[in-house]
Amino acid sequence: MPDLDLVIRNGTVVTAADSFRCDVGVRGGRIVALAEDLPRAVREIDAAGLLVLPGGVDSHCHIEQLSGMGIWNADDFHSGTASAAFGGTTTVIPFAAQHRGASMVDVVADYRERAQKAVVDHAFHMIVSDPSEQVMAELPGLIREGYSSLKLFMTYPLLRLADEQVLDLLTLARAAGAMVSVHAENDAMIAWTVQRLLARGHTAPRYHAVSHPRLAEAEAVGRLIAMAALVDQPIVVFHVTTAGSAAAIRDAQTRGQKVFAETCPQYLLLGAEDLDKPGLEGAKWMFSPPARDAGDRAAIWQGVQNGTFQMVTSDHAPYRFDDSGKLAAGAGATFKQIANGIPGIELRLPLLFSEGVGKGRIGLERFVELCCTNPAKVYGLHPQKGTTAIGSDADIVLWDASRVLEVTDRTTHDATGYCPYAGMTLKGWPVTVLSRGEVIVENGELTAERGRGRFLPRPAGEAARPSGRLAPELDPTRNFGAELL
Amino acid sequence: MPDLDLVIRNGTVVTAADSFRCDVGVRGGRIVALAEDLPRAVREIDAAGLLVLPGGVDSHCHIEQLSGMGIWNADDFHSGTASAAFGGTTTVIPFAAQHRGASMVDVVADYRERAQKAVVDHAFHMIVSDPSEQVMAELPGLIREGYSSLKLFMTYPLLRLADEQVLDLLTLARAAGAMVSVHAENDAMIAWTVQRLLARGHTAPRYHAVSHPRLAEAEAVGRLIAMAALVDQPIVVFHVTTAGSAAAIRDAQTRGQKVFAETCPQYLLLGAEDLDKPGLEGAKWMFSPPARDAGDRAAIWQGVQNGTFQMVTSDHAPYRFDDSGKLAAGAGATFKQIANGIPGIELRLPLLFSEGVGKGRIGLERFVELCCTNPAKVYGLHPQKGTTAIGSDADIVLWDASRVLEVTDRTTHDATGYCPYAGMTLKGWPVTVLSRGEVIVENGELTAERGRGRFLPRPAGEAARPSGRLAPELDPTRNFGAELL
Amino acid sequence: MPDLDLVIRNGTVVTAADSFRCDVGVRGGRIVALAEDLPRAVREIDAAGLLVLPGGVDSHCHIEQLSGMGIWNADDFHSGTASAAFGGTTTVIPFAAQHRGASMVDVVADYRERAQKAVVDHAFHMIVSDPSEQVMAELPGLIREGYSSLKLFMTYPLLRLADEQVLDLLTLARAAGAMVSVHAENDAMIAWTVQRLLARGHTAPRYHAVSHPRLAEAEAVGRLIAMAALVDQPIVVFHVTTAGSAAAIRDAQTRGQKVFAETCPQYLLLGAEDLDKPGLEGAKWMFSPPARDAGDRAAIWQGVQNGTFQMVTSDHAPYRFDDSGKLAAGAGATFKQIANGIPGIELRLPLLFSEGVGKGRIGLERFVELCCTNPAKVYGLHPQKGTTAIGSDADIVLWDASRVLEVTDRTTHDATGYCPYAGMTLKGWPVTVLSRGEVIVENGELTAERGRGRFLPRPAGEAARPSGRLAPELDPTRNFGAELL
Amino acid sequence: MPDLDLVIRNGTVVTAADSFRCDVGVRGGRIVALAEDLPRAVREIDAAGLLVLPGGVDSHCHIEQLSGMGIWNADDFHSGTASAAFGGTTTVIPFAAQHRGASMVDVVADYRERAQKAVVDHAFHMIVSDPSEQVMAELPGLIREGYSSLKLFMTYPLLRLADEQVLDLLTLARAAGAMVSVHAENDAMIAWTVQRLLARGHTAPRYHAVSHPRLAEAEAVGRLIAMAALVDQPIVVFHVTTAGSAAAIRDAQTRGQKVFAETCPQYLLLGAEDLDKPGLEGAKWMFSPPARDAGDRAAIWQGVQNGTFQMVTSDHAPYRFDDSGKLAAGAGATFKQIANGIPGIELRLPLLFSEGVGKGRIGLERFVELCCTNPAKVYGLHPQKGTTAIGSDADIVLWDASRVLEVTDRTTHDATGYCPYAGMTLKGWPVTVLSRGEVIVENGELTAERGRGRFLPRPAGEAARPSGRLAPELDPTRNFGAELL
Repeated sequence: MPDLDLVIRNGTVVTAADSFRCDVGVRGGRIVALAEDLPRAVREIDAAGLLVLPGGVDSHCHIEQLSGMGIWNADDFHSGTASAAFGGTTTVIPFAAQHRGASMVDVVADYRERAQKAVVDHAFHMIVSDPSEQVMAELPGLIREGYSSLKLFMTYPLLRLADEQVLDLLTLARAAGAMVSVHAENDAMIAWTVQRLLARGHTAPRYHAVSHPRLAEAEAVGRLIAMAALVDQPIVVFHVTTAGSAAAIRDAQTRGQKVFAETCPQYLLLGAEDLDKPGLEGAKWMFSPPARDAGDRAAIWQGVQNGTFQMVTSDHAPYRFDDSGKLAAGAGATFKQIANGIPGIELRLPLLFSEGVGKGRIGLERFVELCCTNPAKVYGLHPQKGTTAIGSDADIVLWDASRVLEVTDRTTHDATGYCPYAGMTLKGWPVTVLSRGEVIVENGELTAERGRGRFLPRPAGEAARPSGRLAPELDPTRNFGAELL
Repeated sequence: MPDLDLVIRNGTVVTAADSFRCDVGVRGGRIVALAEDLPRAVREIDAAGLLVLPGGVDSHCHIEQLSGMGIWNADDFHSGTASAAFGGTTTVIPFAAQHRGASMVDVVADYRERAQKAVVDHAFHMIVSDPSEQVMAELPGLIREGYSSLKLFMTYPLLRLADEQVLDLLTLARAAGAMVSVHAENDAMIAWTVQRLLARGHTAPRYHAVSHPRLAEAEAVGRLIAMAALVDQPIVVFHVTTAGSAAAIRDAQTRGQKVFAETCPQYLLLGAEDLDKPGLEGAKWMFSPPARDAGDRAAIWQGVQNGTFQMVTSDHAPYRFDDSGKLAAGAGATFKQIANGIPGIELRLPLLFSEGVGKGRIGLERFVELCCTNPAKVYGLHPQKGTTAIGSDADIVLWDASRVLEVTDRTTHDATGYCPYAGMTLKGWPVTVLSRGEVIVENGELTAERGRGRFLPRPAGEAARPSGRLAPELDPTRNFGAELL
Repeated sequence: MPDLDLVIRNGTVVTAADSFRCDVGVRGGRIVALAEDLPRAVREIDAAGLLVLPGGVDSHCHIEQLSGMGIWNADDFHSGTASAAFGGTTTVIPFAAQHRGASMVDVVADYRERAQKAVVDHAFHMIVSDPSEQVMAELPGLIREGYSSLKLFMTYPLLRLADEQVLDLLTLARAAGAMVSVHAENDAMIAWTVQRLLARGHTAPRYHAVSHPRLAEAEAVGRLIAMAALVDQPIVVFHVTTAGSAAAIRDAQTRGQKVFAETCPQYLLLGAEDLDKPGLEGAKWMFSPPARDAGDRAAIWQGVQNGTFQMVTSDHAPYRFDDSGKLAAGAGATFKQIANGIPGIELRLPLLFSEGVGKGRIGLERFVELCCTNPAKVYGLHPQKGTTAIGSDADIVLWDASRVLEVTDRTTHDATGYCPYAGMTLKGWPVTVLSRGEVIVENGELTAERGRGRFLPRPAGEAARPSGRLAPELDPTRNFGAELL
Repeated sequence: MPDLDLVIRNGTVVTAADSFRCDVGVRGGRIVALAEDLPRAVREIDAAGLLVLPGGVDSHCHIEQLSGMGIWNADDFHSGTASAAFGGTTTVIPFAAQHRGASMVDVVADYRERAQKAVVDHAFHMIVSDPSEQVMAELPGLIREGYSSLKLFMTYPLLRLADEQVLDLLTLARAAGAMVSVHAENDAMIAWTVQRLLARGHTAPRYHAVSHPRLAEAEAVGRLIAMAALVDQPIVVFHVTTAGSAAAIRDAQTRGQKVFAETCPQYLLLGAEDLDKPGLEGAKWMFSPPARDAGDRAAIWQGVQNGTFQMVTSDHAPYRFDDSGKLAAGAGATFKQIANGIPGIELRLPLLFSEGVGKGRIGLERFVELCCTNPAKVYGLHPQKGTTAIGSDADIVLWDASRVLEVTDRTTHDATGYCPYAGMTLKGWPVTVLSRGEVIVENGELTAERGRGRFLPRPAGEAARPSGRLAPELDPTRNFGAELL
């Protein structure tokens, strides 16, 4: 047995399936041994009393991105990925976001460049906001190069695609082998509500929640599922917040359709009432879809428990509460003039651990599955990422399940300047974080060199493969069918 | 007891609730007596052995309308309403169809003019294809004048409304007190499919069925239900054809939402295979949504039986099978260049009686409810129309339940020139038809004077009244609510 | 037109389908004319400003019956039917209740004898508690004689049948042509709960509600539906109280199974909290299944509105609050030693009118359908009873929709001595009641002769006819089928 | 690193979460290392090109058990466990089956004695057929000793429990900490059908399928779920065969109830038509519930795919096709006189691998989860059994995914003498099987010493812990609640 670079001793390894006590041996940045009594290595870490988890995979986060309103995220790729690392997340999949008219090749190149500062490994979803002929021609090549997932919007003025464009992109993804993730809300219901709210002078942040009716989400989720069923393309429904959406997703899964779904800690833990604060203070809790109420949170937890959701992601979208961010439109801003989003990349694991595992709602293995393994599987990063297995990258988090922490506006290391979870007490914290065998966070310090993070080209995984179940009209074996896909 | 103008003796009166043997006394065009042994009247009709039904109410039929393709219906208001009368239908609600840019006031005036030829009483649904500011301003007045129902399209290039327009019109209808009927299919799914079919050279009529996927209907029905739920406006889902749509409607009804629905005989009796004939012959069976298969027909019958559908209408939309109609685009026409629609106004009652009552699928009272009473109730014509009750118009059909008839291309009296049901044998036939106490069909002859039909102004009925169940976001009693409607 | 015995002038006749203003002419106890301006008759009643409703049909009431505990109902057939008449109910279907070992022929004869005192017309459901060979042999003959409905219990020690007995009786009913009504609660869940409650000393009336878990009802309803589906026999689910049961019934109806269902005013209006009074006072509100909570009441109202329930009946089961009734077991009685039931035969219509029609939950026609027409249809009494139609018995209620009444313990005319609805204010009241053309209640006085009520032999109606949809295992057209029914 | 006893080199380890190439090191019968390039060990096995799977865990099999008819299983604990081993199953959980009147302590002791011959490790479910006071007193102690699961029957004359007994045992299991598995079919529906079949002379094996209606299974599953919900006790639904049952289970899982379920290869692969052979030949395919048809198989596969079923077990219940087994009642036997059951312990993994993994219906990790990991987790054997992890028993199967095998009546090593899958071609086969590090099957030979298998005492696992979600009537925090559990 060749010498090991590193041994992590006596921890309890947790995978999506099992928990067991053993040493973890690392060589060349990969896990090469899980064993009792591994021989001494160059570097040794004592993990006695700690959990040894795979590094988190955050498959939904916005980093160094310009919002539709022309406002930059608070985080660049350094601060954003550093914050991720502090929270135990060692792989991120932010977005390469096309603005209308742009070449997707250029967009991707641009984001690759921005990510040169990253301290953890990263891939990109391509946000397609303008599927021009050029872009449609570029996409298959980009997918082949490892950008194997698209992100589409069904709402937002500058981002939303029409249904026919969605169908075109689902079909393209099917042919090219890519996953398709979608922000599903009915744009018209939102626009209709906004228009009436503003016309009646209801401009405060609290009306943000009113302006995104629950029905708008459930409707768009239903429509998306129908479109995906028509062309037999796997999809991921992003940030699900309502009982109605969860039910629609569960029904599709029951029928065997490949519908994956995620929710985020804010939909498990926050409520719309946070928006209702004096002045623009509520803007700190403004994100889309908005937080709902206790009934919805119960339904979303139920979906986490019964398997409707395969992933819990952050939807990290940080904006400073100043004129560079949330307050860019000034003190008189209406709720439509305030950037949507909150930070979350760092607390995702601690929040779900404390409220999920700690409160008996989910087990340890399920926690790993939701935060690490499934995001990697759904997006083609597994088994390189998302698990602790022989040959996988040595992305490892040593987790102290008993550490208690009071969250304040200064707890996290992102550049947002406030924390929407301030005031909560969490139990369970990542104490040491490794990426490819390198310690990147230790003793509360970032030890990673700027730019050490690597781009991860991804082939589409098994999850993105069509099911073969075709709508009867598209089924060439049927009377009236024709080969259309 | 003042003298009666007419007594119909010894028939069996059937209402939506009861069947009973009695004489029917008519005075001044209204039913004034249901009784045993009525005194002799000026005119006497012997109905022994016959059923005495309310005249049919056909709330979905296209008469003297120009299709989106610029092709006229085969029937004008004379032939169309005469055909209705022959089939036992004494009230029709065709469409006053706006083309884009037009004033709705003008459109309505125009259709009122066309209808001067009608032989039965009639009202109009207003098809809104262009809800311009002017039209939005005109509609409340027109609704007050008795045009108390709108018809909206979610598909077809020149007719379809965007979701936000649908919301605006639902809201307008709520405020003005009108029913809203909708052709619900997902336009993008159809367009996407059509584009691919044509690109691959699949142009024959049989591809019409392929181009309207079942999912396109179920999706749009679900979206429509969500939009109507948001603003709490009653709706009618037109011509439902699939199990999925029926299930979505049933679910909404179970929850207490005011969702009404109709199907048509073609969805109970015809199949997509009729489209698959040599050359363009299949065009004779081309209508939208298309006929489906045996499984769908069973599901639609089930909906007729379990109450999902309150109405069976005709969707009469006749086009001649020549260059004035189906073949206007010539022998090389693709399925997209052929006018959609079949005649049905005359056989609606005979088909449903023979296949429904005759085959034990529904009872007599349910037949009356589906074809006469409910269409009148849903659209504000009851109790003047749709029932046999004291004070109601004496619109009466004497029905011979034992008469057997072989349908041929020459059976009906519309101007279409062929019959999509040719070859079927039906049992049960209207032998004498009265409108406002006047015999308009007898011994197979039309005895009605051209233009005797009257316009029926309609207040919106109970069916069109909002339920009061508001979406939480619009509910002013909730934390985050606001009065938006 | 022969002379009329009676004319009711100028009222508004309401049927299950229509409302219209007219005179009602009666001859020989039957309705022979509905007309404007009927000629003068021997007797004239002015109904201007009043509704003219069909007499109520109460298809679920216990009269002069001995409970399983050996305690007599407070009402005999005179007081019970007089109370019905005062409340506008002119037809009752109480029970001929077999005790184990008895001949059903004897039981029926016995109840016929007791009913000689009745003031309104009546039929009987046969409660079968012991389907011995003798009884199974007697039943077809009794059904043919007009006792065309069985009542079965799935709970209660002396009444409950095992599943196999239920199957036998469903099959017998199918062959003989009878409807089967069922009290569906899981006996074991109740017994298990009772045993634990008593063992822990929880004996107060409030524990009655605990001892009948909601799940016990939903379970038994599901089981009953499955058994009825197996042998394709129509059923009536009695007194439904929970959302779960209503959903199971609705699902079966959606699939096309002939499952009818009723609820009762107590499940729409009362709550379990009434049981929680000092001492045994709560016993006044003790009935089975028990009243539930606000969520269940909302679900049951929803079922009344969406059609899940075809009937609202009383389940009148009066016991005096003294040692002849509720308190027979003394002051130390446990909740298991107190007779179950409340009076309700008189207030059924006023309660449903005031809370249903008056509060906009249901329309007038639906009120008539629920209380009069459907019970008659389901049990084979229509069109003789339950409607206002030519040839029907002149059972007529003149209803003053504007009369307001405060309910007290002295309001009703049954022999119970208290009223569970005391304190409520009702709007709408029956002011004059006729049975077969005879005024039996007028000016708050009973004018009916003791014993004038007649027995109503009933053929099974259309409702009781099997659907023809067989379970695959019993379907002789299937591979493995065999003709078993 | 201490010396290893054994290294399995270069195989692909598959767990429920991951697949990865590595060596497996074994010491003292346990897996102590998963690593690249392990040092040389005493024994080396080359697994290049092979899958390295955890040994199968068969949690539903009948071995050396006397049927209710008094007929012995063909297999004793030697042949049964040898057959298991040949098929790659290294842990079995057969039954310790109480006959009425017996002491459970004695029964368990008796089965422990019989199992002295076993070649693989084993635990026992306790079949309780007679929950006498004595047995109820014995059970908690036995559960504590490691017999932490009960098996209950809702059908079969000598085994079935009444609902109240089921509730008692669910409650006992809740308090003592045990899982409860149930054979759920409605006994009355079966008895009723059987009685009618036999009365009409329908005695052939094919009528076995008729006699177990699908509705009988769905009904009992629904009832069981309701009972378990009442007392909040986790359950396992055994051998699910119908779409209706699967839907009821899925619904309960969606609501968050702890309902686990299994199906068996026979319900995925066989059909009722196999019973329809000349004479008694069909008896070879007679088991309960019976195989159904293609629609049911599709529904059951769907349940395997969407997660409704956590486990695929064998329900191994072998009887020889001679007078010691199936034919004990002679050539004139009715279908009720023939022992129910087929062998399956050996082909379970090969069948599911070939038809599931091989045909693309499930992935490799899901195969391991269904056959190995989940049965161990549900019954408290994990992580000792059911996975390949550090510290787990070295129960390992080397699987040749490319080996093709034609099944004949001689393929398997049980004592049945025929094989219900004869004629099928399977791809994928266990070539070497290890139990606790010892090779027990190699080169088609059993190398295990008789009696080497060990008894596995099991604490109840996480799966058996109540959810804490109480029925409202049992919830002490509610108004009418009381602490009853």
